[in-house]
Amino acid sequence: MIDINSDMGEGFGLYTMGDDEAMLGYVTSANIACGFHGGDPRTMDATVAHAAAREIAIGAHVSYPDLAGFGRRSLRVSSDELITDVLYQIGALAAFCRRHGTAVRYVKAHGALYNDLAGDEDLAAAFADAIVAYGGDLAALVLAGSPAVEVLTGKGVRVVREGFADRGYTADGRLVSRRQAGAVITDPAVVAERGWRIASGAEIEAADGAPLVLEVDSLCVHGDTPGAVDLARALRDGLAAHSVRVAAFA
Amino acid sequence: MIDINSDMGEGFGLYTMGDDEAMLGYVTSANIACGFHGGDPRTMDATVAHAAAREIAIGAHVSYPDLAGFGRRSLRVSSDELITDVLYQIGALAAFCRRHGTAVRYVKAHGALYNDLAGDEDLAAAFADAIVAYGGDLAALVLAGSPAVEVLTGKGVRVVREGFADRGYTADGRLVSRRQAGAVITDPAVVAERGWRIASGAEIEAADGAPLVLEVDSLCVHGDTPGAVDLARALRDGLAAHSVRVAAFA
Amino acid sequence: MIDINSDMGEGFGLYTMGDDEAMLGYVTSANIACGFHGGDPRTMDATVAHAAAREIAIGAHVSYPDLAGFGRRSLRVSSDELITDVLYQIGALAAFCRRHGTAVRYVKAHGALYNDLAGDEDLAAAFADAIVAYGGDLAALVLAGSPAVEVLTGKGVRVVREGFADRGYTADGRLVSRRQAGAVITDPAVVAERGWRIASGAEIEAADGAPLVLEVDSLCVHGDTPGAVDLARALRDGLAAHSVRVAAFA
Amino acid sequence: MIDINSDMGEGFGLYTMGDDEAMLGYVTSANIACGFHGGDPRTMDATVAHAAAREIAIGAHVSYPDLAGFGRRSLRVSSDELITDVLYQIGALAAFCRRHGTAVRYVKAHGALYNDLAGDEDLAAAFADAIVAYGGDLAALVLAGSPAVEVLTGKGVRVVREGFADRGYTADGRLVSRRQAGAVITDPAVVAERGWRIASGAEIEAADGAPLVLEVDSLCVHGDTPGAVDLARALRDGLAAHSVRVAAFA
Repeated sequence: MIDINSDMGEGFGLYTMGDDEAMLGYVTSANIACGFHGGDPRTMDATVAHAAAREIAIGAHVSYPDLAGFGRRSLRVSSDELITDVLYQIGALAAFCRRHGTAVRYVKAHGALYNDLAGDEDLAAAFADAIVAYGGDLAALVLAGSPAVEVLTGKGVRVVREGFADRGYTADGRLVSRRQAGAVITDPAVVAERGWRIASGAEIEAADGAPLVLEVDSLCVHGDTPGAVDLARALRDGLAAHSVRVAAFA
Repeated sequence: MIDINSDMGEGFGLYTMGDDEAMLGYVTSANIACGFHGGDPRTMDATVAHAAAREIAIGAHVSYPDLAGFGRRSLRVSSDELITDVLYQIGALAAFCRRHGTAVRYVKAHGALYNDLAGDEDLAAAFADAIVAYGGDLAALVLAGSPAVEVLTGKGVRVVREGFADRGYTADGRLVSRRQAGAVITDPAVVAERGWRIASGAEIEAADGAPLVLEVDSLCVHGDTPGAVDLARALRDGLAAHSVRVAAFA
Repeated sequence: MIDINSDMGEGFGLYTMGDDEAMLGYVTSANIACGFHGGDPRTMDATVAHAAAREIAIGAHVSYPDLAGFGRRSLRVSSDELITDVLYQIGALAAFCRRHGTAVRYVKAHGALYNDLAGDEDLAAAFADAIVAYGGDLAALVLAGSPAVEVLTGKGVRVVREGFADRGYTADGRLVSRRQAGAVITDPAVVAERGWRIASGAEIEAADGAPLVLEVDSLCVHGDTPGAVDLARALRDGLAAHSVRVAAFA
Repeated sequence: MIDINSDMGEGFGLYTMGDDEAMLGYVTSANIACGFHGGDPRTMDATVAHAAAREIAIGAHVSYPDLAGFGRRSLRVSSDELITDVLYQIGALAAFCRRHGTAVRYVKAHGALYNDLAGDEDLAAAFADAIVAYGGDLAALVLAGSPAVEVLTGKGVRVVREGFADRGYTADGRLVSRRQAGAVITDPAVVAERGWRIASGAEIEAADGAPLVLEVDSLCVHGDTPGAVDLARALRDGLAAHSVRVAAFA
């Protein structure tokens, strides 16, 4: 059994990003932007409404405060800054969930923050502290195999380990940087193949050709890559063809 | 019996505004800025912590999005924009309340939004819709005598009628604009006198000299006027001298 | 002879808006966003570079500070606030013009500010004061027939009167609000017809059917409407077919 | 001969920072915030006006875009991002200089950006590229003894080497981090002593007690430290007592 999550609600005002309506047909969990890298209040409200109507699990997609950089640039924040920025974003999203009769189920870091806390135990601890401070039994989606898994688990946070069918991996299980070749996979057949292999615990190939096995609870499909919807469909079809059940972890 | 409320947590990052620590000694309700006119997440967190420690009722002090103008400039927003902006801010503040074992009890509009919805029934209706959408039985602090009182009450929102001991009033019970003379009263003796009179339902003098009686449930003391702490103390002393009990409405 | 101007560089970070590359093939003047409603520094820089390479006249497309509302919401600013906000934006754009060996030639207000100052003489005067304060003989693009034309001319600003081939007009020469039907015209044939008629001083039809003659120096084509590029091409073809010469006013 | 520079205009909207009026009495160069860490357009305009009236040299105090962190947090930006962010800020400030009959004479990085480019040659090169792209013979204030001095000089930028009379130094001439003890010196007598010693090329004491000689063209006095005005006065008096002439480098 595997969850499929995708980033949603990343538009801002008149600006759009991705085809959320289509993606909602393929995912079981929606990472919804909370205003810091994308997602103004109207976009958040509409995205929550759509996700709630389809009974898709809602997560707070929290970011460094960096709209101009879409949250893809590392900002050196203190633990206190991270905790309070994360709390602010979870709470803001929760208000729209209340309006639409649902609730925030999990938290996932976005962009540079996602990568930074996968490799920085202090940052991961602060992320955990924010989730614990919010309460309500929120899960955390973090990079499978990263030190953050232990840190969050140690703080009592339920961890959902995440893998990527459309991203390249280094041999040690880290994502290939978006500034390097091979970071993003756009061939639906390859994404489908990697998807069911990851979900089944089978080997995939790292960027250097080495075999890599990931233990993951959720697969992420990106909504802002070219052909994102095709990739999501291919992924779902591939999982179905290999009898992997798809359901929200939450 | 009367409540005393004050604006709190209006700093932003390194910038400070008012003497919150001192003001917390005189109020029963704290209107805490939510990031749109002031109040970054660190300031919000610390302000909630202080208010919670003193068991002061916490309200979301929601604003138009206008940090450069400190929320004092009217922005022509649609009902949907107001509803979603208000929800976002209430939710963000609620996260810090959760962290500190308390909850948001009420909502008060800030600055230009406060004035605009006091006189605009559509805007007041949208404000009410946001509060109803959030749920949880939040009260709304609105200008005593304004049409917004009826609008919010009609939508099922518990209204707390607010008066100002340190602001001038027009003969019809509206606040004198800050751009005009007589808008802000700085003499502690005058503030004290107006305070107990308003709280007791006794006449005060409007800007044109006409007698004016207000029905109010809460008195606002501003924290950002010169001598704000002295005014708050004088107000409390004046109420005590006239045997008016001070307690949170919430 | 007529100028054709269009809004450009209205993306922000990863967000895109319109097809600037294509539009640059049809216009003689580019209104470039300066960060207040759209246009981060990277977008500004690239847009200036493209416009400079094609020797298209560059104007500062200045706005109220309102990224979330794309500058389409009125903000009640003081004269001093408008003057300083306009100066800030002109200067920021000028830096990119310096980099690319060109200069800002004119200023055009965006969205709500455009409409507000067309009808508010104090605001138009402040707009003029900003342009005069910047110096360098900048022209101002303002709505043809609006009181702002006189105000700016009276302050010594060179005024370029603007008409819209793809917007509906009221009988008194004001634009139909975007919230009303008939605000935006999307039929290329209609736009082409209205374009050459306006440029030639021939009658067009106002929203209520009344005949309307506009005196304009520049026609605006919107880059963010559906089929914008088709409209721009149709407009150019229509002008050519009626022997109206197209050239920058600057 | 030595220049004295100080950060100015770092307020934002209603928020104030430092006592600029008083500091302007002691400095020969004013580093004026450009909106990215502080300094809204009104504050920029007023600060430029005051500096121009006193014939104090004006510099653009450019920052990472981080108002909530006052520019004190490192943001990992690309060279293109730095170049365009710096150009934007210089240009914005230049507009106010035009209004008040003066011009930007130099550029100084603020906060984390100042420290980052002192130690990162790629960042320093991008900073230089921005200054060269702007043109007009702007100087750059950079940390005396840092690798950035060579990088900027190599790109043809006139470098003004900066020292700090009120900051602790490590033995290799870097500033002690503000997160560590000894980062900021608040005793006027010590600041005065260090000031004339640095200006005269005499030894000062590094944080570890080692002797340190700096070659500097400008001394920075901070306006936002407690007793900043007293420090500035003490510094000027100390320089006068040791016959060091104070004049703008520009």
